[in-house]
Amino acid sequence: MTVAFQGETGAYSESAVRALYPGVRLLPQVSMEDVFAAVVGGRADRGIIPIENSLFGSVHVNYDLLLASEVRVVAEVHVRIRHHLLAVRGAGLSSITSVYSHPQALGQCQTYLRRRLPHAEAVPTYDTAGAARMVAWKGKQHYAAIASRHAASEYGLELLAEDIESHHQNYTRFLALAPSGSARPGALQARPHKISIAFALQTNVPGALFKSLATFVLRDLDLLKIESRPLVGSPGEYLFYLDIEGSLQDVPVARALEHLEELTALLKVLGSYPIGGTWDEPLHDS
Amino acid sequence: MTVAFQGETGAYSESAVRALYPGVRLLPQVSMEDVFAAVVGGRADRGIIPIENSLFGSVHVNYDLLLASEVRVVAEVHVRIRHHLLAVRGAGLSSITSVYSHPQALGQCQTYLRRRLPHAEAVPTYDTAGAARMVAWKGKQHYAAIASRHAASEYGLELLAEDIESHHQNYTRFLALAPSGSARPGALQARPHKISIAFALQTNVPGALFKSLATFVLRDLDLLKIESRPLVGSPGEYLFYLDIEGSLQDVPVARALEHLEELTALLKVLGSYPIGGTWDEPLHDS
Repeated sequence: MTVAFQGETGAYSESAVRALYPGVRLLPQVSMEDVFAAVVGGRADRGIIPIENSLFGSVHVNYDLLLASEVRVVAEVHVRIRHHLLAVRGAGLSSITSVYSHPQALGQCQTYLRRRLPHAEAVPTYDTAGAARMVAWKGKQHYAAIASRHAASEYGLELLAEDIESHHQNYTRFLALAPSGSARPGALQARPHKISIAFALQTNVPGALFKSLATFVLRDLDLLKIESRPLVGSPGEYLFYLDIEGSLQDVPVARALEHLEELTALLKVLGSYPIGGTWDEPLHDS
Repeated sequence: MTVAFQGETGAYSESAVRALYPGVRLLPQVSMEDVFAAVVGGRADRGIIPIENSLFGSVHVNYDLLLASEVRVVAEVHVRIRHHLLAVRGAGLSSITSVYSHPQALGQCQTYLRRRLPHAEAVPTYDTAGAARMVAWKGKQHYAAIASRHAASEYGLELLAEDIESHHQNYTRFLALAPSGSARPGALQARPHKISIAFALQTNVPGALFKSLATFVLRDLDLLKIESRPLVGSPGEYLFYLDIEGSLQDVPVARALEHLEELTALLKVLGSYPIGGTWDEPLHDS
């Protein structure tokens, strides 16, 4: 099995791959478009994409790619994002003059950096894994990177400080994609399932959003996510993202979706899959 | 009047300031926390924060700061984000060997860069305005930055190529903040208003989300935004963001909010303000 993800070895996306599909062949890609293309084109059996972060919201560009692509969601996982300070063996806080990382990670660790490394220069990089790779390659004791524990292990770096992020409630939800045409699971598994859909309402139906939610609520189906997104260029029109507890094989779910189609101008079932757990890094990386 | 914003001169946030409060004194801040602190502490009359982007979703960290801070929202504006290729006078595409910008901007212009500058090195920076400043400071014809037209004008750079982003529907919604205690507008203005609220539901009320929306819908109040955000560490509990058309001075709105309080464990009115327009850059920057 081959799984495509965006980023390089040691990226947080790779943790999502390892959590969902341990031991598979990894296919790192430069862009999200490349991940979708790898799945649709058959070069990868699965693709992993981030869909929302607990601090920075939903990734609309990936919802757009989900709507446009012949893929379906088959799994999800929430990855705890922990930032550590990495350096070569023998380095100490007092020797560090430059800290490399993605601007967002540098920002999330600003409080720590201001207090403990007030004179170090913060140097932006493309991604956290790339920062770790660069520090390892330079091999000097005055460089540090902010990245994951896995990146430290991958590039042979030591952890100078752990969990240096200001917001510890930092989780990214990743989705696993398969080609649309691939075999669906036959029997319903015991684990609770969810369905992800995206839809746009017919503009001439008064109270259409409320009615569209009623199709689920009145059938006692729980909503797990709801989000509206204004359609740029069409004032007053919205795209909605909904996650509902249940499986496509449940009769009330199928009825609710039929009912919803009466109200929507556009409706796509993005996938039906087991509700995912949370993945946190192991204390000792394998 | 003094307005605080995060970023440096030439940042997209500054466009939001100029759109809402032309001619005021600008107070650039290093972090979002600093913007809130400047407003609460009285060093700024207003603060400008990004709250959602049409490609990258809601900025939950700023919702968190809104919930925790003694501020209220008094205005909004949607800023069209356009990315241009900037260089010193006399530079041409064929002379460019390095392109500086924020990783997100570099990513959004990847298609252009791959096609037109396949051999140029992409160099990440903290922000787009900083990239423009650096290219101006270096003064060499083989450096380019991806930034706004305003940054070009601010740092004396020329536009080598315009609108090089892949997604042209890129808008960021900014909010203007005032201290909670400051004077509220007396009479209702003619312009349509909206109210932004955040709330968490009581966990023991079945169908609580649907009922909470009903408090508005059954009073014919339009929902302009709805978003759920899982409360990390509390499975099944959510924070909701709602924007509703109307003003706090409207009786049905006041009644709906009273009704909503019966269902919520937490409710904060973030502000009541005129529905904002869209700001696009002028062809010739002043």
